[in-house]
Amino acid sequence: MKTAGEEFRTIWLNPEDVGVVQIIDQRRLPHVLSVHDLRTWEDGAVAIAEMYVRGAPLIGATAAWSLYLAALAPQASPNSIRGAADALLASRPTAVNLRWAVERIMRLVDTYREGSSLAEAIRAEAQAICDEDIEICRAIGRHGLTLLEKIAQDRGGGRVNVLTHCNAGALATINWGTATAPVYLAHARGIDVHVWVDETRPRNQGSKLTAWELGEHGVAHTVIVDNAGGHLMQHGEVDIVITGSDRTTRRGDVANKIGTYLKALAAHDNDIPFYVALPSPTIDWSIRDGLSEIPIEERDAAEVLQVHGIINDRPATVQVAAAATPVRNYAFDVTPARLVTGLITERGICTASEAGLTGLFPDRAAT
Amino acid sequence: MKTAGEEFRTIWLNPEDVGVVQIIDQRRLPHVLSVHDLRTWEDGAVAIAEMYVRGAPLIGATAAWSLYLAALAPQASPNSIRGAADALLASRPTAVNLRWAVERIMRLVDTYREGSSLAEAIRAEAQAICDEDIEICRAIGRHGLTLLEKIAQDRGGGRVNVLTHCNAGALATINWGTATAPVYLAHARGIDVHVWVDETRPRNQGSKLTAWELGEHGVAHTVIVDNAGGHLMQHGEVDIVITGSDRTTRRGDVANKIGTYLKALAAHDNDIPFYVALPSPTIDWSIRDGLSEIPIEERDAAEVLQVHGIINDRPATVQVAAAATPVRNYAFDVTPARLVTGLITERGICTASEAGLTGLFPDRAAT
Repeated sequence: MKTAGEEFRTIWLNPEDVGVVQIIDQRRLPHVLSVHDLRTWEDGAVAIAEMYVRGAPLIGATAAWSLYLAALAPQASPNSIRGAADALLASRPTAVNLRWAVERIMRLVDTYREGSSLAEAIRAEAQAICDEDIEICRAIGRHGLTLLEKIAQDRGGGRVNVLTHCNAGALATINWGTATAPVYLAHARGIDVHVWVDETRPRNQGSKLTAWELGEHGVAHTVIVDNAGGHLMQHGEVDIVITGSDRTTRRGDVANKIGTYLKALAAHDNDIPFYVALPSPTIDWSIRDGLSEIPIEERDAAEVLQVHGIINDRPATVQVAAAATPVRNYAFDVTPARLVTGLITERGICTASEAGLTGLFPDRAAT
Repeated sequence: MKTAGEEFRTIWLNPEDVGVVQIIDQRRLPHVLSVHDLRTWEDGAVAIAEMYVRGAPLIGATAAWSLYLAALAPQASPNSIRGAADALLASRPTAVNLRWAVERIMRLVDTYREGSSLAEAIRAEAQAICDEDIEICRAIGRHGLTLLEKIAQDRGGGRVNVLTHCNAGALATINWGTATAPVYLAHARGIDVHVWVDETRPRNQGSKLTAWELGEHGVAHTVIVDNAGGHLMQHGEVDIVITGSDRTTRRGDVANKIGTYLKALAAHDNDIPFYVALPSPTIDWSIRDGLSEIPIEERDAAEVLQVHGIINDRPATVQVAAAATPVRNYAFDVTPARLVTGLITERGICTASEAGLTGLFPDRAAT
């Protein structure tokens, strides 16, 4: 996407100091667009665990850049970088891109030979992961665009209403996003596209992040509570649902932000197409059954009982319910493949099935 | 329910001043249990519109008491009371108990003969509405209890997990609640009952009100975000869903708090019984198709973009998303009868169908 006419990235190496990786502190959006410096791999681990950054592709990229910082540390060694990798892997269990990116970097570390610069090699690889992610998102956008064009044609040029959950946008990737990439391309082509944005409790990534980036890019959108999507679908106000994914099994089960499953059920009940946009690093080829095999992260009760925002332009946190209230706070759920109309990948759109995924990725499926 | 060992009511005539009706200001729960005085019918209208009180039965009772206050006003006349009735009817469009209670009071007004005390007659009728509501809720509790007892038996005495949405509790009625009445009775019988409480955005009646009253009564409960219920059902953590209703059509379609439909879909997908507990004044015998015939109230965008709570024990409101964000805020949705396992009424449990409802209420169905 573009902000103020400029293309943007969510993570980059400080052009004036190659010892500093810079990110947007997404916890402060939409109120403040704040750049945060990562100077050590531990800074990167905190940024992931505390959700300065989130979104499966961006988590992976941040882990890669964190290993670059680990390689820059005084007395860095393959062993010290391995220690950093293990710590990073433990920080968020559900998204698989984290593991994918760490393993990609660690292949360089494991084959390291003295004399070359390991940090330089990791830097190039982290940069490649980011550049490739942008190309993947653009490709997802091109494939997903065909779905929105078809709806617009069937409508005779009328408004196309997309519903999305959480933020699978530019802010979840390096740029352009997964679920939002088709929307940005459609907007550029002059299609009248409008996005229903689930606020996405408990962390409100929809009302805070997705609404912000759609607004910056000039895309029409409306925020709703997570409870409202079914009602809108019953009344013909949604043409297509597109979400992202934090991990997709080889048979097409999709782990994504908690509540995605409920929207898939409502789409199914109302004959509305439900698509998941995902870069191939999000596919976990090692598992089939998402419900039994994907670990679901549980997070702190405070995310549910307290809400962050601003009062008079200053950050503030209110206690909504009684502090002692018992809470369970699951961060993700699994949508079974049977409820997914199709998967939008960088290689095209396929059915949510092993046949569909292996058809598009025969080279990966064999591993 | 009981608080501090005492039975409680949500609305009552001040025993020391028959010109004052008292309510709990539910906007301040769970942080403060605050009693609010209604001295004019306009006070009652504000209490309903601004949601000092909410819940279909309590809205109806508050309207009845408001008409009593209208009858006490200087220069009160049947015409002035009619004006108050019209204003009250316009305040919340979805719940049908409001209309039912107002019409019940207005029958007294329409047949008024000079010489008798109209205010006294309305007072007795408002009191009767409240007393009857308590008996209705107790009867709903007795019928619903059989469902929980059956689950406990099948489990060999293990924990019974109920999921509920919004607050259809003591606070939504005069006492005992509709969806919660079976839970309170089960708890009294020594059944190990635990309630999953949807927080219920945007106004958080679940985390604020349902969690509070279950806690006061000593019932085990856990608050979750609205997004989480499907995940719990997929993993066997929910034995039964029980919600309330703001209006039920004669064929069993159920209007209830926004998001109820999504929980009904998830229950259906996981073969979990989905029951709706409702007092018969919630049935609208004049309509059949809930989706096309029940008006769905839309409320202010601020309910979505701002969140109320406390900071350091003082009331505070944070702005969560940007103030200019476009929002739609639907307060209710309609769950089609096909997704409802059964209706728990004061006369027993029936299928969500015209045959089921007319079987239990042949006297009402004919009207």
